[in-house]
Amino acid sequence: MKLWQKEGVSTSDRIERFTVGRDREMDLYLAPFDVLGNLAHAQMLETIGLLTNDELTALETELKTIYQQILAGEFIIEEGVEDVHSQVELMLTRALGDTGKKIHAGRSRNDQVLVDLKLFTRDQLWHVAEAVQQVFDRLINRSEQHKNDLLPGYTHLQIAMPSSFGLWFGAYAEALADDMLTLQTAYRLANRNPLGSGAGYGSSFPLNRTLTTELLGFEGMNVNVVYAQMSRGKTEQTALTAIAAIAATISRMAMDICLYNSQNFGFLTLPDALTTGSSIMPHKKNPDVAELLRAKTNRLKALPMEVTLVMSNLPSGYHRDMQILKEILMPAFDEILDCLSITDFMLEHLQVKPNLLDDPKYDLLFSVERVNELVLQGVPFREAYRTIGKEIAEHTYQPPRDLHHSHEGSLGNLGNDLIRQQMNQAMAGFGAERARVAVERLLGRNS
Amino acid sequence: MKLWQKEGVSTSDRIERFTVGRDREMDLYLAPFDVLGNLAHAQMLETIGLLTNDELTALETELKTIYQQILAGEFIIEEGVEDVHSQVELMLTRALGDTGKKIHAGRSRNDQVLVDLKLFTRDQLWHVAEAVQQVFDRLINRSEQHKNDLLPGYTHLQIAMPSSFGLWFGAYAEALADDMLTLQTAYRLANRNPLGSGAGYGSSFPLNRTLTTELLGFEGMNVNVVYAQMSRGKTEQTALTAIAAIAATISRMAMDICLYNSQNFGFLTLPDALTTGSSIMPHKKNPDVAELLRAKTNRLKALPMEVTLVMSNLPSGYHRDMQILKEILMPAFDEILDCLSITDFMLEHLQVKPNLLDDPKYDLLFSVERVNELVLQGVPFREAYRTIGKEIAEHTYQPPRDLHHSHEGSLGNLGNDLIRQQMNQAMAGFGAERARVAVERLLGRNS
Amino acid sequence: MKLWQKEGVSTSDRIERFTVGRDREMDLYLAPFDVLGNLAHAQMLETIGLLTNDELTALETELKTIYQQILAGEFIIEEGVEDVHSQVELMLTRALGDTGKKIHAGRSRNDQVLVDLKLFTRDQLWHVAEAVQQVFDRLINRSEQHKNDLLPGYTHLQIAMPSSFGLWFGAYAEALADDMLTLQTAYRLANRNPLGSGAGYGSSFPLNRTLTTELLGFEGMNVNVVYAQMSRGKTEQTALTAIAAIAATISRMAMDICLYNSQNFGFLTLPDALTTGSSIMPHKKNPDVAELLRAKTNRLKALPMEVTLVMSNLPSGYHRDMQILKEILMPAFDEILDCLSITDFMLEHLQVKPNLLDDPKYDLLFSVERVNELVLQGVPFREAYRTIGKEIAEHTYQPPRDLHHSHEGSLGNLGNDLIRQQMNQAMAGFGAERARVAVERLLGRNS
Amino acid sequence: MKLWQKEGVSTSDRIERFTVGRDREMDLYLAPFDVLGNLAHAQMLETIGLLTNDELTALETELKTIYQQILAGEFIIEEGVEDVHSQVELMLTRALGDTGKKIHAGRSRNDQVLVDLKLFTRDQLWHVAEAVQQVFDRLINRSEQHKNDLLPGYTHLQIAMPSSFGLWFGAYAEALADDMLTLQTAYRLANRNPLGSGAGYGSSFPLNRTLTTELLGFEGMNVNVVYAQMSRGKTEQTALTAIAAIAATISRMAMDICLYNSQNFGFLTLPDALTTGSSIMPHKKNPDVAELLRAKTNRLKALPMEVTLVMSNLPSGYHRDMQILKEILMPAFDEILDCLSITDFMLEHLQVKPNLLDDPKYDLLFSVERVNELVLQGVPFREAYRTIGKEIAEHTYQPPRDLHHSHEGSLGNLGNDLIRQQMNQAMAGFGAERARVAVERLLGRNS
Repeated sequence: MKLWQKEGVSTSDRIERFTVGRDREMDLYLAPFDVLGNLAHAQMLETIGLLTNDELTALETELKTIYQQILAGEFIIEEGVEDVHSQVELMLTRALGDTGKKIHAGRSRNDQVLVDLKLFTRDQLWHVAEAVQQVFDRLINRSEQHKNDLLPGYTHLQIAMPSSFGLWFGAYAEALADDMLTLQTAYRLANRNPLGSGAGYGSSFPLNRTLTTELLGFEGMNVNVVYAQMSRGKTEQTALTAIAAIAATISRMAMDICLYNSQNFGFLTLPDALTTGSSIMPHKKNPDVAELLRAKTNRLKALPMEVTLVMSNLPSGYHRDMQILKEILMPAFDEILDCLSITDFMLEHLQVKPNLLDDPKYDLLFSVERVNELVLQGVPFREAYRTIGKEIAEHTYQPPRDLHHSHEGSLGNLGNDLIRQQMNQAMAGFGAERARVAVERLLGRNS
Repeated sequence: MKLWQKEGVSTSDRIERFTVGRDREMDLYLAPFDVLGNLAHAQMLETIGLLTNDELTALETELKTIYQQILAGEFIIEEGVEDVHSQVELMLTRALGDTGKKIHAGRSRNDQVLVDLKLFTRDQLWHVAEAVQQVFDRLINRSEQHKNDLLPGYTHLQIAMPSSFGLWFGAYAEALADDMLTLQTAYRLANRNPLGSGAGYGSSFPLNRTLTTELLGFEGMNVNVVYAQMSRGKTEQTALTAIAAIAATISRMAMDICLYNSQNFGFLTLPDALTTGSSIMPHKKNPDVAELLRAKTNRLKALPMEVTLVMSNLPSGYHRDMQILKEILMPAFDEILDCLSITDFMLEHLQVKPNLLDDPKYDLLFSVERVNELVLQGVPFREAYRTIGKEIAEHTYQPPRDLHHSHEGSLGNLGNDLIRQQMNQAMAGFGAERARVAVERLLGRNS
Repeated sequence: MKLWQKEGVSTSDRIERFTVGRDREMDLYLAPFDVLGNLAHAQMLETIGLLTNDELTALETELKTIYQQILAGEFIIEEGVEDVHSQVELMLTRALGDTGKKIHAGRSRNDQVLVDLKLFTRDQLWHVAEAVQQVFDRLINRSEQHKNDLLPGYTHLQIAMPSSFGLWFGAYAEALADDMLTLQTAYRLANRNPLGSGAGYGSSFPLNRTLTTELLGFEGMNVNVVYAQMSRGKTEQTALTAIAAIAATISRMAMDICLYNSQNFGFLTLPDALTTGSSIMPHKKNPDVAELLRAKTNRLKALPMEVTLVMSNLPSGYHRDMQILKEILMPAFDEILDCLSITDFMLEHLQVKPNLLDDPKYDLLFSVERVNELVLQGVPFREAYRTIGKEIAEHTYQPPRDLHHSHEGSLGNLGNDLIRQQMNQAMAGFGAERARVAVERLLGRNS
Repeated sequence: MKLWQKEGVSTSDRIERFTVGRDREMDLYLAPFDVLGNLAHAQMLETIGLLTNDELTALETELKTIYQQILAGEFIIEEGVEDVHSQVELMLTRALGDTGKKIHAGRSRNDQVLVDLKLFTRDQLWHVAEAVQQVFDRLINRSEQHKNDLLPGYTHLQIAMPSSFGLWFGAYAEALADDMLTLQTAYRLANRNPLGSGAGYGSSFPLNRTLTTELLGFEGMNVNVVYAQMSRGKTEQTALTAIAAIAATISRMAMDICLYNSQNFGFLTLPDALTTGSSIMPHKKNPDVAELLRAKTNRLKALPMEVTLVMSNLPSGYHRDMQILKEILMPAFDEILDCLSITDFMLEHLQVKPNLLDDPKYDLLFSVERVNELVLQGVPFREAYRTIGKEIAEHTYQPPRDLHHSHEGSLGNLGNDLIRQQMNQAMAGFGAERARVAVERLLGRNS
């Protein structure tokens, strides 16, 4: 029996299954954005005389109806229909006859999927930004709440100097604020209009791409039509790189949490909802959710490489290979949003163990503080150092438990307001409002 | 509104969704292997007195019934049941009461999932081996069929020397024969018994691991119980590396096919079932299926890195992170088998263009042959070289179109029998028969 | 003989070799920036009373001398000195005695290397930006020069529609303009002051981090001291991601060039300096340099993953692992700058083959144009399509070789001014002038 | 000033620097193997009449002299000579005139570098195998030495069940034994003769490839000449995958060591030679060497992906891109050998803390043992479980510190002899003796 023929599936069905794969499922993510692209393209076609005003009105009415169906979860890609673009065109044609077909003038499936992908990615990146901001706010709040709860600070996993939960929470907040710059770049690369680039070589119709750019609220255009096509892959790559940056921050925090939850550290307690235990080993609180969070975010870090591998050494011009990028990109948004949501819950509910540094095993954490105290009192550094070394050797050393760190970003001056300012600037830099307003206007809503 | 609370889903449902994820779907892949592991463990427990002979018989009967349900597609993991192991235990307990519970003695969920994964992976790798062999056979057949159909040979994408479709098909056959060695290593690493390692620290019950090793047809044991647990990740990694090696061979072939299908090469014709065209551009035969094959196999090449990222820098001992490895491993088997099946179909149906080298633009391909002819007639190399160079410059050069390559692996002596021998040895090296016989015996079938 | 003892090298030498590795070589990259960090720290120490004004003056004089030595290539890290920071401190102490040691107050080697790395990375990223701009300018110029030189446009590697060298060059220019946004993000993440974060837990000295931020021309601070340390890895990762983005653009262009240089395409001619030939095969112009460019840029695309692998699952806090990041980061700057330089030369000298589309094999490229012509004359699309299809079938089809593409970014309206505007905005967004001025001021130069 | 022209370096020098890169440095690794390839090729040429017996004798004498120069470290690639193959040919020609040139008959630089790479890789992989075996032996010895030194066993980083240093050391030994299978596959793929494949399209000379296969001690041939060329990339990839597998084992052990060296675990003590300390914090023993070991091995795990990126989507046939693979492969061997050597030293000198489980915080580790005790005494599992749970709740629980694990691979029965047997079989499977004997014979030595 031949490999090919086993299972009694027909050849055409097998090829269909191979080529379509999960593509229709992925295309459902694009549906609302396909409608938006159609609305803008139709308005533009009317301005260059390829649609009459009546045709435009009819198309807009029908497209808004489809948009409502999508929102209501009633939109499907019918059996035998290849993709979301064909489905929308089919619905328009069913309703409006030839007028429905006219909307395809000056477009190719290639620039249609491009514009859908850009709008989808722009939208999803903004959702991610908002989710990051909530986790950020949580971290800042917990940082303020625990600014006086000390924690051993480690270097080389060796006990080193005093730290605090205020610093620990705040550090991850600032990490996320920095990640927002990467996210913003991804947003800006997605926020460019490829519509009008056709199959990558433009159109001989006198399209007005500046108009569709404005209508869709894009920051600018993918100007060069060959480049517009080439931005496929780059858009996905940059978006996934931003997701991976956030994932790296979360995975590291999850590692800290798993470690701090170990009996050998014992710095924090996870809520029962996030652990599994053992009735016979009451000490055991397995941090399953933090571990899965770590694993899922670590896995997300591989996705930019998947895009790289699909795109590497492909000559310029469209290739069907790019279809597979959807399967890499789209579930990644769901996954990172899910991870951010769980992170927020975990951060809300984890309990910090108080007075950790009262344990004498952490006494030597304070030795550097003690040296600095002497130096600030005028003792030369080398002498201060010797003095404290001697105290330690002779067991007369007393750790100075009241700390006076005062500089920016230190134990006594967390600088969370500065960090929050960075976050606010990053959020403002997206320019997401322009996109929102344009979409509302296209849909004929008051914004 | 808090990130966490949106969508009105309860906290416990969200955490459940996050932790279970696609795990039950993945666990269905393991179901038949879980039954096999139970059958072997039960037999062993009887030999050390932890099950009576009657209990064993009852359990075996019940387990074989479950196995039939799985084969019939009737097995499900019920709502609220955590995984496949619990489901099987639940079914045994429903049918047999306390006897059903006894089978858990001396085991942990950790070594249960390990043994299931090893058996599953062993089984799937052998399926891949068989699929590779079919593609291999196809390649050898096409190589023999086209041993006289010449093809330009390129270096640096520059026309260089005469090649043939016989060589081209045969080269990919030999590539697959080499890939089988990597596949065999993955098989051997999967073919080790972890049962009895418990949660990674063994058991104080006097288990007989040698017996279960034999009953399950394993080549040997993961001896050290700490290592048995540590083999999680390594098993998956090695299997995915083997899949990636095969994928790399297929993706390169797909690249050649896309290129050779371009009008600028025009070396082969793809069947209509594998291309999409354009009625207005009758020349256009887009090789969509070859492109998707290229993309899918290129993507598979990233998977070993996903496992690496999940496992990197995890201290020894089980972590819940490892659950995610199932989602990387299992769909990869489906994907590579699908890709091999499409490859087979493509190779069966692609048509080779004859007489390609009659085109005068390929005349200079033969210049090195011409020099060698003179050398073999006794002309010193430098002189022969100068002579032919002069002929070319003066346009008197005549390409010697009858080639006499005779050494092993060359145009005139493809060596396909040697390559087939390598393949046969590789297949024999798996030792798959032992596994097959053991499984049949466990299931009480005549083998 | 033991593995360890072979070669008769002493244990301490072997360990030294293992731990130092290429680190001193890497540290030479940091030398000028270490001096800058010292200059700023010293000024700050004086303002908080930890240095006298005379001490500051002496230190500044000495530091500027060292800076000159570095510029002159005379600076070395002496045998037995561990790193660049120790070497500079040693030189200060030799010259100034105890005053030289005082500069270490309130610092740790951890924040010293951090500030050096930030300054180095900021500097190098700006060099890369300038190099990209030159390649960009070259591309725009060649695009304008060849705006009327038509080229077949491909989709699926199938001949599809008319393109031009104007579009092809311009597309890569726009790709680089987009890559500059990623580069800018890397620059901004590097452009943050970690000085004062000590070993990651700050200092009990009343440091003025706002002042050193200003003195070093940083855009802002890594505020939280734990985060400052955590930015190690992220800074390198983001810089390498930006390098990888540029590398991806270059590698794709190199692939196009290798393909277009093949006799089967024959679209361009590479200068002899960039090819190797064969005297007996005069047609052969192996594009070795383009191939190496492709290989080197493809390899650069792996580097972000190297950083990811080193950093994954490390708990927060400094680990010596991070030393290895220098060996990944620093040579990458040399490599990308080298690649950009060769790209510029290649783009300057490659020759475009004129009148490519006169070859009748490309006639059908114009069929879509022909349909659109009729549509614009009022013929319904379906009818126009049938008409041209019939012409092709009956061989009466005449390709309309005068094209009238007029929309933004198309054949007849390349939009290079818009693209240039994007580039200029990207360059301005770095804010590199602030850094330059601050450095000049620190060094006491007129800027 | 143009990017290209800065620094006043001539164009040809810059291109030379770009194309040669580190290639000559890499080629020195190949020198002895180039001589071996020449010796075998010369013997074969004599058998087919392309060299006289006298010429062969002269060439052999000269080649052996060059081999001695290489061993003595006196061999260099002269300025202006492109590669190692040209250098050897130049030396032969200088010494023997035209006879020196004759050795090039029936070869191309492509199959020369291929055969050198295969011989080099085969040789280095065997060195790695031997180094792994030494580390393996060390681990087995330490495992036996510490079979009674108990250690807490963790799951989820939570204290779970009793383990031992015997198990811990043994687990890594078994991991290495499994890694040897991957190494063996790499060895077997390298152990194939590509000589005679020319530039990838064979030769019209009547070469006897079976003879050179035997002379060079290869296990077999890369039969198909197109495949021989295609094995470039695959050979490197497989070798680096094997290195990465070993690196993954070592990096995980290094992570354990860093963690166990933390005061919060305190399970082992590292020798002073491998740590750095702080005189003021006498407790601090930074495990710098273990951290660098972790970082270096983690980085090695990225290398297979570098090869993948260079090779992805390159059509079949030689491309200059492949030169870059040498820079990835060759330093990787030095690095892994260095890491194995340090690992061996670390394992030799690390001290195990005794009686760890006497600390009452680990008492609950034994609870499962206690339940199993009762079960083996006939108490039903559920009742035993309740009994012990009650003891724990009422603080009457006494941990049973004498353990009776007896099954294969458990605390009381480590199974190190079985593991050693696996290792021995793996080593024997390389067939390295055949290669050694052939090389000695080629060099005219008694073996």
